[in-house]
Amino acid sequence: MDDLVMECIFLLVLVTLLSVLQNAFFAQKVEKECKAHNSKTAAVERLVCANRNCMDMYPTFLAVMWCAGFCLSQAPAAFAGLLYLVARHKYFIGYMGQTSQSTPGFLFGKRVLSFLFLMCVIGILNYILGTYGSKEYKEYIQTITKAASTLLLLP
Amino acid sequence: MDDLVMECIFLLVLVTLLSVLQNAFFAQKVEKECKAHNSKTAAVERLVCANRNCMDMYPTFLAVMWCAGFCLSQAPAAFAGLLYLVARHKYFIGYMGQTSQSTPGFLFGKRVLSFLFLMCVIGILNYILGTYGSKEYKEYIQTITKAASTLLLLP
Amino acid sequence: MDDLVMECIFLLVLVTLLSVLQNAFFAQKVEKECKAHNSKTAAVERLVCANRNCMDMYPTFLAVMWCAGFCLSQAPAAFAGLLYLVARHKYFIGYMGQTSQSTPGFLFGKRVLSFLFLMCVIGILNYILGTYGSKEYKEYIQTITKAASTLLLLP
Repeated sequence: MDDLVMECIFLLVLVTLLSVLQNAFFAQKVEKECKAHNSKTAAVERLVCANRNCMDMYPTFLAVMWCAGFCLSQAPAAFAGLLYLVARHKYFIGYMGQTSQSTPGFLFGKRVLSFLFLMCVIGILNYILGTYGSKEYKEYIQTITKAASTLLLLP
Repeated sequence: MDDLVMECIFLLVLVTLLSVLQNAFFAQKVEKECKAHNSKTAAVERLVCANRNCMDMYPTFLAVMWCAGFCLSQAPAAFAGLLYLVARHKYFIGYMGQTSQSTPGFLFGKRVLSFLFLMCVIGILNYILGTYGSKEYKEYIQTITKAASTLLLLP
Repeated sequence: MDDLVMECIFLLVLVTLLSVLQNAFFAQKVEKECKAHNSKTAAVERLVCANRNCMDMYPTFLAVMWCAGFCLSQAPAAFAGLLYLVARHKYFIGYMGQTSQSTPGFLFGKRVLSFLFLMCVIGILNYILGTYGSKEYKEYIQTITKAASTLLLLP
């Protein structure tokens, strides 16, 4: 059974590990900045705020990604998760810059999260239809999702 | 295997998705309020605080709900999760009101979380008894839990 | 299937429950302290800060522990999780004391988290090697990990 499970979650685990590495990187950046400037300057303040926003969204992101991976299919969910990590990195770096290149508050990576959310909903609908209805559309939907996840790359 | 797993987690995923929607709703409310009042008024401050408290409890809630769903049975866990979301909504709305209708700090939805926690403990005890002991009480316990979860509706 | 799953996650669930209890304990301590001193003293401030740091790391910790438990083996992951909880408790108590016995900011329990992270990486590498390569080293690695997890006890 163990190998079967591993096959289903293996990419999701990889993305999760990457996100953990990124968290550690963010925490270290904040730590370093706090030590460099002993007083609370505006720059440090903004860095702490960016880290806070990222951390606030983190459980939501993990929950949505894993659900999407279980309900529909693994590869697109992991790919979307990767894109989210890239978006988060851009957001954090943008906050560090002098000029305000950052997007406002909580809403970064919104599109990726919506996509993952949609995947969950489709997966559940499909399961209900498959149980109480007659046919399974899972194959078709998975093909469409895989195509759609590449469309996320468009700016 | 995939369909078997889906059958076990399907309600839990639904509640998780609902909670994600609620998170997005909270974040948007805070975002909107911050933009409306540029200065930091007391109302905005309180909204941010309510959101913070909700977010702090969120990983704990998810962990307890999923564990309860896995260890004992899915339907009562999902139902209790739903009740928790309702309690959280009331809490957040209460914080937004002028008068202090809100419960203090971290302790909202305490009863629901305790119930979920108890479900986990019972599930684990039952597993240990089933492995090292002789009989399985799981059937009885599941019936009792399902009855108990409706009792949570009492105020 | 249910019992097979329970066998794989049963220790992880136990550690998760313990961590939830600890969270509740921390929250209650903060609550009590806030009520005792109505004004915001330095002690309360520091307690809130310690709680915040713990809560920020919590989703990361859960994600890494569960992944390590799934990818490699359950017992060492749960044991390392337990050690992390002890470290966190020490950290929190240290923050409460008058003198500054606490470690700086986000970096407590770093060694335990690194160990769990490493377990995940090894587990995934092992899976990839097992799929595309020829042999499985899982048995050897599990033995080594179990030995290594006791080494974490060294200060």
